[in-house]
Amino acid sequence: MHWLKTPIQPPDAKIYQRAWQHQQQLTKPPGSLGKLEQLACRLAAMQRTDSPAADYVWITVFAADHGITQERVSAFPQSVTAQMVSNFAAGGAAINVLARQINAHLEIVDVGVVRALKLEHVIEARAGNGTDNFLQQPAMSQDQLTIALQAGKSAVERALLQQSQIFIGGEMGIGNTTSAAAVAAALTGMPAADLTGAGTGLDQQAIVHKTAIIEQALQRHQPALCDSLAVLQCVGGFEITALTGAFLAAAMNRLPVLVDGFIASVASLAAVKINADALPWFLYAHHSQEKGHRVILEFLNAQPLVDLHLRLGEGSGAAVVVPLLRSACALHNGMATFGQAQVSSAGS
Amino acid sequence: MHWLKTPIQPPDAKIYQRAWQHQQQLTKPPGSLGKLEQLACRLAAMQRTDSPAADYVWITVFAADHGITQERVSAFPQSVTAQMVSNFAAGGAAINVLARQINAHLEIVDVGVVRALKLEHVIEARAGNGTDNFLQQPAMSQDQLTIALQAGKSAVERALLQQSQIFIGGEMGIGNTTSAAAVAAALTGMPAADLTGAGTGLDQQAIVHKTAIIEQALQRHQPALCDSLAVLQCVGGFEITALTGAFLAAAMNRLPVLVDGFIASVASLAAVKINADALPWFLYAHHSQEKGHRVILEFLNAQPLVDLHLRLGEGSGAAVVVPLLRSACALHNGMATFGQAQVSSAGS
Repeated sequence: MHWLKTPIQPPDAKIYQRAWQHQQQLTKPPGSLGKLEQLACRLAAMQRTDSPAADYVWITVFAADHGITQERVSAFPQSVTAQMVSNFAAGGAAINVLARQINAHLEIVDVGVVRALKLEHVIEARAGNGTDNFLQQPAMSQDQLTIALQAGKSAVERALLQQSQIFIGGEMGIGNTTSAAAVAAALTGMPAADLTGAGTGLDQQAIVHKTAIIEQALQRHQPALCDSLAVLQCVGGFEITALTGAFLAAAMNRLPVLVDGFIASVASLAAVKINADALPWFLYAHHSQEKGHRVILEFLNAQPLVDLHLRLGEGSGAAVVVPLLRSACALHNGMATFGQAQVSSAGS
Repeated sequence: MHWLKTPIQPPDAKIYQRAWQHQQQLTKPPGSLGKLEQLACRLAAMQRTDSPAADYVWITVFAADHGITQERVSAFPQSVTAQMVSNFAAGGAAINVLARQINAHLEIVDVGVVRALKLEHVIEARAGNGTDNFLQQPAMSQDQLTIALQAGKSAVERALLQQSQIFIGGEMGIGNTTSAAAVAAALTGMPAADLTGAGTGLDQQAIVHKTAIIEQALQRHQPALCDSLAVLQCVGGFEITALTGAFLAAAMNRLPVLVDGFIASVASLAAVKINADALPWFLYAHHSQEKGHRVILEFLNAQPLVDLHLRLGEGSGAAVVVPLLRSACALHNGMATFGQAQVSSAGS
């Protein structure tokens, strides 16, 4: 895991400044395009260009299973992970529909579903047959942690080969809000109750049970939870770990990341805890309905673009937001300036 | 104005119900696509189809001038209205860029800029050479009101001829947040101070002045402000009135309206005050930064889709949101069901 120490450069501050000044010249009241202005400037600075773009979007969905499902923490049976991977491979899931809409490249990586699926169109980078039940033992071994992180890095390498301009990481894994909440509690020091939500649809009583399981697990692993990697190993999931690896690799390679919802945001938090310089490379797409997301966003001081009450995962919320990035870029690159259009500016 | 009495039918409740049940069958936790699910169901019910669509989008931007600019209520000089119409005609404004991005039909209607522009690509439906200064006298005559309402209706008729699936009404008119705030105050009974904001960029002192002008004008016209039409005539603008006419005509013809920001929302409020049955035909695109928008949205009990801190007008905020409508439709129409994909549903 030597690559985790690769330094991360900041986005280009001079280009940000130039982009901001360009925005002041466009034929609109200054600031009137709100978040879209800042978005265009941030993308310009990340892509080191005066003409930012979000045309080539890469989506990797990492799928894996979770031993913690033995503790009845999900509204759906564990078998749904594999079933949904088949659904991804067949093109029927939400992320497939959205990827087609925005003309993004979509790939599915099996990073440890409980049984290997041997499906065409599914990349195998399996760290194991699902994680172990982290109420009883660490979720994964150090070797498995390494494999899962590398699976994320490899996805970003494929994205870079195709000149991708935006990286989206999605996930599928029944039980993964439990794992993500445990990771988030360990990394932020916030109580599990503030980070534990309905996931795919638990009722209030089931959420109380899920919270108790997380609290017990954190207590059990407490002495070992010394850093992000240890936290991921003890209570993480293969797909969450792969996302952390992917997000770090993207930041190392100056590839902007559009972060989806709760799970992806927790993975981004783990990445930031490994290297704080990663944060400026993350654009937060949306505010999810999953309870813990607000805590994570506040912890990272992140302002997501929209709140559509989504809570699906798969990278779907990020994919939905891609056209807004494209609008921001199109406006930045395509609007006339006051000078070009002979329009008087304010106060003139 | 006999056409204003045409009855408005509600969206189809049975199709809404069927669409909602279809959403429960799609391979995702029920409700996990949040606002996008409701949006697809509403569009299905409005379009009376099981396969809602937002492919053919029609945008009409109505431009007009305001006599009230004599009272120094705007950060930009009145001449900017005409300059921006030229910018629209040349394709350099935000709405041009966005219309190209979403492949929408965009037309510009001069409904009363202070001097006729005689520009190619600009439709003339002029109610006058700008409104009169409504601090001194009614903004327009009854004949002008009729012409402006008709200009809106005609735009919708053109949209219907082209099988448009969504109607967006935009506006351009230096001084029109002053007029819109006055209309909104008269229609809601709320204090002008709650509805008066920075517009294109006034400072706090200038907003106080703008508020005082509106209060004086409302006091002057008070005895005449008996209904929406009288309010539009006394303190409205040609483009605001055209929007009201367009929105009513769209609702009468079962054409869903995607409402932009503050000005368009005030026009929609006037439409609802003329015929309350129009409201279900309006989708509110975004929460604008312009101060009074929140009041209008709350008054209409409208939940806009996003808040991107926009405050530009031109229909730009609605155009930005069109891809979200398309995502909602694509997901509704394109996702596999649990049965098709052989995915277990919750609790199974």
